[in-house]
Amino acid sequence: MSLEEAGHYPVEKFLIAFALILVSAKIFGALAERFKQPAVLGELVAGVILGGSVLALIPSSDGMAGFQTFHLLAEIGVVILLFEIGLETNLADMVKVGPASAMVAVVGVAVPFVLGFAGVLAFEKYGLIQGVDPSMMTLIAITAGATLTATSVGITARVLSDMNKLGTPEAKIILGAAVIDDVLGLIILGVVSGLIEAAKSGGAGITAAGVLIITLKAFGFLLAAIVIGNIIAGKLFNLINKMRVRGALLLFALSFALVFAYLASLVGLAPIVGAFAAGLVLARTNQVNIIEERLKPVADVFTPIFFIMVGAAVDIRVFNPFVSANIPILMIAGVLFIIAVVGKFVSGWAVFQKGINRFVIGFGMIPRGEVGLIFAQVGLAYGVFSSQLFSAMTVMVMLTTFVAPPLLKIAFARNGGQASEGGYV
Amino acid sequence: MSLEEAGHYPVEKFLIAFALILVSAKIFGALAERFKQPAVLGELVAGVILGGSVLALIPSSDGMAGFQTFHLLAEIGVVILLFEIGLETNLADMVKVGPASAMVAVVGVAVPFVLGFAGVLAFEKYGLIQGVDPSMMTLIAITAGATLTATSVGITARVLSDMNKLGTPEAKIILGAAVIDDVLGLIILGVVSGLIEAAKSGGAGITAAGVLIITLKAFGFLLAAIVIGNIIAGKLFNLINKMRVRGALLLFALSFALVFAYLASLVGLAPIVGAFAAGLVLARTNQVNIIEERLKPVADVFTPIFFIMVGAAVDIRVFNPFVSANIPILMIAGVLFIIAVVGKFVSGWAVFQKGINRFVIGFGMIPRGEVGLIFAQVGLAYGVFSSQLFSAMTVMVMLTTFVAPPLLKIAFARNGGQASEGGYV
Repeated sequence: MSLEEAGHYPVEKFLIAFALILVSAKIFGALAERFKQPAVLGELVAGVILGGSVLALIPSSDGMAGFQTFHLLAEIGVVILLFEIGLETNLADMVKVGPASAMVAVVGVAVPFVLGFAGVLAFEKYGLIQGVDPSMMTLIAITAGATLTATSVGITARVLSDMNKLGTPEAKIILGAAVIDDVLGLIILGVVSGLIEAAKSGGAGITAAGVLIITLKAFGFLLAAIVIGNIIAGKLFNLINKMRVRGALLLFALSFALVFAYLASLVGLAPIVGAFAAGLVLARTNQVNIIEERLKPVADVFTPIFFIMVGAAVDIRVFNPFVSANIPILMIAGVLFIIAVVGKFVSGWAVFQKGINRFVIGFGMIPRGEVGLIFAQVGLAYGVFSSQLFSAMTVMVMLTTFVAPPLLKIAFARNGGQASEGGYV
Repeated sequence: MSLEEAGHYPVEKFLIAFALILVSAKIFGALAERFKQPAVLGELVAGVILGGSVLALIPSSDGMAGFQTFHLLAEIGVVILLFEIGLETNLADMVKVGPASAMVAVVGVAVPFVLGFAGVLAFEKYGLIQGVDPSMMTLIAITAGATLTATSVGITARVLSDMNKLGTPEAKIILGAAVIDDVLGLIILGVVSGLIEAAKSGGAGITAAGVLIITLKAFGFLLAAIVIGNIIAGKLFNLINKMRVRGALLLFALSFALVFAYLASLVGLAPIVGAFAAGLVLARTNQVNIIEERLKPVADVFTPIFFIMVGAAVDIRVFNPFVSANIPILMIAGVLFIIAVVGKFVSGWAVFQKGINRFVIGFGMIPRGEVGLIFAQVGLAYGVFSSQLFSAMTVMVMLTTFVAPPLLKIAFARNGGQASEGGYV
């Protein structure tokens, strides 16, 4: 019997939506590969089709029954993805590419910021932005620039994994840059929120000491997590391995990742940064191979939910050029998109090492994903962004997400760098 | 960054609650085994401790933020458990024990119903039940009897699996009886709801034709699912096996179970009955071994959530005898509990086959679980049960759930039947 009384989202709807997500993820993933594209692109498209603006078969926006559940499962999905990638990554390699990663991250933050700042001021000059307080333009331009700085590593990591390229130096530089980028993003978010609050309420804004504290907390967490993790993980997992209960090793490893993700979010970092650090730590335990093997089916179940939900959040109606309100949004979004692509693309040339495929790095840093949306939401919530500018930002984020997989595929086909084998099938 | 805006339950709380559930399930499971008890008993206890009435570290009742998400994950957990058990079960064996299962189910429904009916009338006679309309007593006694008929197979199935006893004939008789019991429960629920509506609003009640339709729909679904499933599953999974996308086989198999669970709930059966049928069907495909192997880690992640949530729903405060309002509740619950245990226990003697451990069957049918709670909720919602009687029913359900694992352990130790090997480690 199914006379369930558990609130708004009925169990049977959840069961069928879950099945639909898993099946369509695999079918569209296979179709994408038929067209020589990474499977993740198919999953994103499947998400668009299942989402609210097309078939509305899964809850795709906040307030819809069941949305929170799928949103949380999606978060677990991307946490497991980055944990899995961390497990396959050698910490020493990451340290080795550290300087290159740092250069990529800094260039990839600075260039989009400056271009975005200048671009928004230009929009205003040519009358494209309407209905905003002119005295706020500098703040609007700063917030827009900040929105363009974010990197969301989920998409790129999945593409690299789909293409078996996680073992390449390019992959390691991108992963390192994404971690550093997240710390930079945190600092920028702190500064921008401070500036907005100061402008709005005449508050103190943010001080240099405040920026320093944010930075120290973030880097301190990463360092402490990896150092302390390394000290205890080896002994802990040798002990757990002796437990005779079914699944103990897998569940403790997964919980380790969840706890690191939790701690990361406490210091303000993305949960996936914590999960990646957990993977780096457990990669050095004796049980890493068993953990990876048992984690794989769990990742197969959870990870597609993330990419389906990213796709489902896309409202394709905003792309309809016959709705006149969409035209300025699409024009602004188009320019922002070009800035977003160019701004990150040049970061590939911040690497001085030889034999590196700069196109892979440049394209790999493009997706803005949920991190960009967080900035845009802050802008909207504080009344800095008009709904027009917010929509344009959202469109820009969507486009960067969808353009990265095919561009990365092309970049690897150029074969400008190593083509070493890594990752899994 | 974690400036998530997805409603009421913050992502970081979800991450840490999830980790807590997984870790404590394993630790308490290992402790239970140290005391020679099935691991599931440890998981239930862990749930009680994490739940609202002790530490309140996880959302344990409707209305708490995040409850719906864990409730839905728990449902997936028990669906996967019964799917997994179906995969290990031979359909021909099930058919062979069919008559024995039917006898166990019928006796296990009839005896608790009659005893429950008589018991509640006796409670009234001795003044234990207060605040109810005397003209309603027959209806109250019928509803109480119905509440006592339910069997929840999740607990027993897990104990049999923990103890490696899924291959025994006793396990097959219990599984078959649980499926038939669910159909009987559905019919009883239809009849009781009809009687209540007729008594309350002078409606038509339920007709013989209505009962027949419920029965045909339920049996029709089971038959159709297994027959049609058998025809298409072999070819379908040979085809899926050719897909080169990572995880395709696992995800299609899991989706198959989810769809069957969904269809079962559409005809009014428990989702787990559908999932078990899906397992029986896929057990006959060429890919069953790969599916089982890849499903195992996924089951390891989801299944403990179900047992933790069952434990977390227990409000231990009702057991406090120093609160005077608890005393009549506990007295009624105690008698109901004895009826619940004896009523199902005798069903073991409904099997005429030789060499069967009747204690295992009798004890295995005891847990009422969520199915009993559904009846009790119907009684409460229609105003048939007083809150006192409802609480007593809830306590009875809890006790049957917790008493089954140790009793089964004892029954197997008696070794009155086969001790064949089955199941998994």
